[in-house]
Amino acid sequence: MTGTAAAPFTADDYRARMERAVTAAADAGLAGLLVAPGPDLVWLTGYAPTAVTERLTLLVLTPDRDPVLVVPALEAPDAAKAAGASALTLRDWTDGKDPYAATAALLDARGRYGISDTTWALHLLALQRALPDSGYASLTDALPMLRAVKDAAELGLLAAAGAAADRAFEEIRTMRFAGRRETEVGADLADLLRRFGHSQVDFTIVGSGPNGANPHHEVGDRVIEPGDMVVLDFGGLKDGYGSDTTRTVHVGEPTEEERRVHDIVRAAQEAGFAAVRPGAACQDVDRAARAVITDAGYGEYFIHRTGHGIGVTTHEPPYMIEGEEQPLVPGMCFSVEPGIYLPGRFGVRIEDIVTVTGDGGRRLNNTTREMVIVD
Amino acid sequence: MTGTAAAPFTADDYRARMERAVTAAADAGLAGLLVAPGPDLVWLTGYAPTAVTERLTLLVLTPDRDPVLVVPALEAPDAAKAAGASALTLRDWTDGKDPYAATAALLDARGRYGISDTTWALHLLALQRALPDSGYASLTDALPMLRAVKDAAELGLLAAAGAAADRAFEEIRTMRFAGRRETEVGADLADLLRRFGHSQVDFTIVGSGPNGANPHHEVGDRVIEPGDMVVLDFGGLKDGYGSDTTRTVHVGEPTEEERRVHDIVRAAQEAGFAAVRPGAACQDVDRAARAVITDAGYGEYFIHRTGHGIGVTTHEPPYMIEGEEQPLVPGMCFSVEPGIYLPGRFGVRIEDIVTVTGDGGRRLNNTTREMVIVD
Repeated sequence: MTGTAAAPFTADDYRARMERAVTAAADAGLAGLLVAPGPDLVWLTGYAPTAVTERLTLLVLTPDRDPVLVVPALEAPDAAKAAGASALTLRDWTDGKDPYAATAALLDARGRYGISDTTWALHLLALQRALPDSGYASLTDALPMLRAVKDAAELGLLAAAGAAADRAFEEIRTMRFAGRRETEVGADLADLLRRFGHSQVDFTIVGSGPNGANPHHEVGDRVIEPGDMVVLDFGGLKDGYGSDTTRTVHVGEPTEEERRVHDIVRAAQEAGFAAVRPGAACQDVDRAARAVITDAGYGEYFIHRTGHGIGVTTHEPPYMIEGEEQPLVPGMCFSVEPGIYLPGRFGVRIEDIVTVTGDGGRRLNNTTREMVIVD
Repeated sequence: MTGTAAAPFTADDYRARMERAVTAAADAGLAGLLVAPGPDLVWLTGYAPTAVTERLTLLVLTPDRDPVLVVPALEAPDAAKAAGASALTLRDWTDGKDPYAATAALLDARGRYGISDTTWALHLLALQRALPDSGYASLTDALPMLRAVKDAAELGLLAAAGAAADRAFEEIRTMRFAGRRETEVGADLADLLRRFGHSQVDFTIVGSGPNGANPHHEVGDRVIEPGDMVVLDFGGLKDGYGSDTTRTVHVGEPTEEERRVHDIVRAAQEAGFAAVRPGAACQDVDRAARAVITDAGYGEYFIHRTGHGIGVTTHEPPYMIEGEEQPLVPGMCFSVEPGIYLPGRFGVRIEDIVTVTGDGGRRLNNTTREMVIVD
């Protein structure tokens, strides 16, 4: 799980977020929001239990009463220490009692509620049983953009996380690649992210040679060789906000084909970034990047969407994907990360985090996007 | 999240588990089982994705066809490497396609399915929308004992994890406590667990003095002092199976009251263990332990259930709690961990993992349960 590190916000910040969320829910025709442990709860309250278990913890946000956090009695002392605790009422329950009945008592029996995506099915089914006439929509379906637009403090934290990831890249490019295992380079990347302030490392993908052609390959035992293309995709959380950047380097001189593929991906990433402006649709970013790759004849080798949002997690709405008509709004932050994957041979991906400004986009990653030659 | 480390089982082992699960589902009147990433999927297939995201991964087990794993195309190569992969059919889907429609096509539109507890609400709601006449029950409600009875290989792994935790306790009791922070002792415990073979440390609770009276306190900055009672509760995964043990030590000589409370908890733990035998109900273990504490006048200070199961996670059914009438069966493994918590003063808890044998119980933790005096 990602997104559980604490961020430097006050109870007033969390109170304001909860109020905005209740208003957004009402605007969407919902009777309220139900939020289990996970990134939404972190964002709304600052609270992340040390472990997510089968014991129900659930934030209940409704227009008619102050926020209530239903919490196991054993965990109430920890919840009371959360930065947003003074903005809500803790309602604890002890083992053997029915927390669903206690929650149902706070709800409208015929209401329709937004419920956080990561809420366990165990809990949703129990609520559906307790209130058979109630209805539910996932928070991402009902309010996909709830956390998507970042405020100034959040943008500052995302920019700092991006800068830290950039520093990690500037260091790793000076290190030796040839003759070392992917796992070793991955461990170096993790160390660098931590050294530059990350409290949590979510992924350190090192895809060398043919491994780079599997976009979800992480690291393996493969020894990196001269002549390898190497995809480096790494990120995590710094002060509670995410980083995620990709650069594709080459060990020694590339072939003409390798250089051409890298150039196409770079142009695609540039085109995706250029499409970022208020009012454009998320799918426009995907289309702009994809068109470059398709026009170059590699369309079938770009096998994933162009980007995803980032905030208290490294992976969240909005998604830059065909069919996503959500308009971009200043303050949104997401990745632009086209790639070309040639099975059994090599892959190239280039990724920056981008935020929407008043009249365009601004990159939060700023290392060179030209192909870097490593040793 | 716990329970994602790989265990040393073959595709045949996983095939047999999936077959048993389908049979158990049919016996429970279910049309099949739906299993998202998490401990159930690890147990059934050996597969744990590197990250759980909003992209649907779902194992579909029905009596009429071989197991199918619906999986994002990007993750299919990883899934194909899982130990149980050859016992199932991978059905991959690419970004932009509807994985719920693909899953619904495998299901009976009016069927009632068991669904893993930790499945995200996002996915359950989408399935309910795709098949409005289908029904769902959480796996824990429908088949609470699916993973509860361990086979010989699993018992061997749990015993080895318990022995490793015991070695960690034998080391930590020789180390200095007074003058060090809880965080330092906790870090030592984590190091010891790893040194003795754990791949994952789930918790290292060090509750000194008044912190010991909060049963879910983990570690804090408090400096441990002479005269402190210290609750040590630690565990994690070794070779894919869990450890979880608690001992309460004392820095220097205890007071008469401290010794009396410790003796009561020890007697309660002994009574709980003595109640373990095939055919007894889970609640009998809780009642036996609780009676000792209640009879001694401390009933109101024993504020949690007596135990929980353990296996590919450190925390799962069966639960030793009032109202749980599930009979104990040879091969079940769970904790017996009564405690007394005196708010603002100190706490005592003693915990062993116990397995049900043909005629009683066997402890998988075997360090002394007498109060250990530390420096």
